[in-house]
Amino acid sequence: MRTFLECLPCMMQQALRAGRMATDDDIKVKKILDEVGALIKDIPMDSTPAESGALVYGKIREITGVIDPYKKIKEASIKEAQSLYPELKKAVTDSDNPLLTAIRIAIAGNVIDFGMSKKFSLVEDVQKILKQDFAIKDFDDFETQLKNARSVLYLGDNAGESVFDKILIEELGKPVTYVVREIPVINDVVYQDAIDSGLDEVAEIISSGTTAPGTILDLCTDDFVEIFNQADMVISKGQGNYEGLSNVDRSVFFLLKAKCPVIADDIGVKEDDIILKYKG
Amino acid sequence: MRTFLECLPCMMQQALRAGRMATDDDIKVKKILDEVGALIKDIPMDSTPAESGALVYGKIREITGVIDPYKKIKEASIKEAQSLYPELKKAVTDSDNPLLTAIRIAIAGNVIDFGMSKKFSLVEDVQKILKQDFAIKDFDDFETQLKNARSVLYLGDNAGESVFDKILIEELGKPVTYVVREIPVINDVVYQDAIDSGLDEVAEIISSGTTAPGTILDLCTDDFVEIFNQADMVISKGQGNYEGLSNVDRSVFFLLKAKCPVIADDIGVKEDDIILKYKG
Repeated sequence: MRTFLECLPCMMQQALRAGRMATDDDIKVKKILDEVGALIKDIPMDSTPAESGALVYGKIREITGVIDPYKKIKEASIKEAQSLYPELKKAVTDSDNPLLTAIRIAIAGNVIDFGMSKKFSLVEDVQKILKQDFAIKDFDDFETQLKNARSVLYLGDNAGESVFDKILIEELGKPVTYVVREIPVINDVVYQDAIDSGLDEVAEIISSGTTAPGTILDLCTDDFVEIFNQADMVISKGQGNYEGLSNVDRSVFFLLKAKCPVIADDIGVKEDDIILKYKG
Repeated sequence: MRTFLECLPCMMQQALRAGRMATDDDIKVKKILDEVGALIKDIPMDSTPAESGALVYGKIREITGVIDPYKKIKEASIKEAQSLYPELKKAVTDSDNPLLTAIRIAIAGNVIDFGMSKKFSLVEDVQKILKQDFAIKDFDDFETQLKNARSVLYLGDNAGESVFDKILIEELGKPVTYVVREIPVINDVVYQDAIDSGLDEVAEIISSGTTAPGTILDLCTDDFVEIFNQADMVISKGQGNYEGLSNVDRSVFFLLKAKCPVIADDIGVKEDDIILKYKG
């Protein structure tokens, strides 16, 4: 997905929010905004928003020296998600269609996104999404491809959401490789967050090598790109991964909640819709 | 009021919104965002947001060549407000306290603000504000100063709101000078809008000389500053005028709805509160 004009003010908002998360020093936050403002003119509109995100969050690291501004928030999100785990596991077990319910739960976890200005309440949002109709529901394709896959490559998105991913991975019944970001960016899941979420119990955890808040293949390691291209089935969680992979030359299942109007528009759905989209 | 860090991403949003209003050419809008982004670093945090607003809207004029992007919107706002005029005049006449009701109506008109991302519905918002409690209600001071004033200087804010201002001016019972911006900026009231609102029937209309979306004395003409300093009573409508005048060295009555969290915070009220504030 390309960058839209709406993404540019949004980058400034993200810079402010994340800058404030990293430091109490308003002088430093102003410097972040100055520098992000100045780089707007260099953003190519045919690049993905997540690529610019890598620049924005890089500036925050550079100016504040804080590597992981969202560390405490990520830990709290994982803890909160884990407190819901038993109840959600039961919802899957009790369901007529455990796989579809687990998909819903994995999408529900996608509300845990601190890159957005939108507020969320995990417990309430999960309850809502468990009953919400899908705007796109390519479940038959999902079932078919899963049945034929020897293994699944699962691209994680946010920390906390990762606990809900575990629930879906447990229903897939195939060997799974779970992909995390190389370094902290927003509240995206990194290796340690995946371990804290218990994903090492159900999947092999690897890094895509990216510093962007999304899977942008140009910014990933060659090793990862090869794994990605050769995977039997790819499950991509969230907006950032969608941004990077919406036009790649292979099949991908996108599981996400459309939290931003620009992404909703690009997918052809409405804001707050939930999506299980097959890109062949 | 000084500029807060939150104002900087907001300027980018305003640039996008107003740029889109001025042109369908995305290349030009991108150029506006590039240039506004680049000038963030030069914004002194001790200047008012309205001063930076003058720069932002100046860029839009310069890049698009469009002098008044909100012209049609302003005309529609005035028309809609005029359609409510008879009903609101009756509300004043029927009221136990016509002056206070007219103040409420003038504040209700302050929702017509296209500088904000917040959406509004004039009819519904007016009905709501007519029943809403004031967060600050310095009505006694207002009545006393009005009684003793030979004349009133009334600083207009938005076009459309200007029709509601007429209702308050009719209740003041004193000679009124109504102040407009020198050139179009956002949907702020300029001379022709004031005429279209029928303000020439109840007041003398003058320009402050400013190109900012607010009364920033440093950007006003010397003639206006003299009129301002010597006025018996000053009524200031809206956020932009508050930004410019919150710290000036004379008494002012601020009538506004706090539509932005930063301004609400500066005044010490909550977002969406309505305010009749006396600054002595």
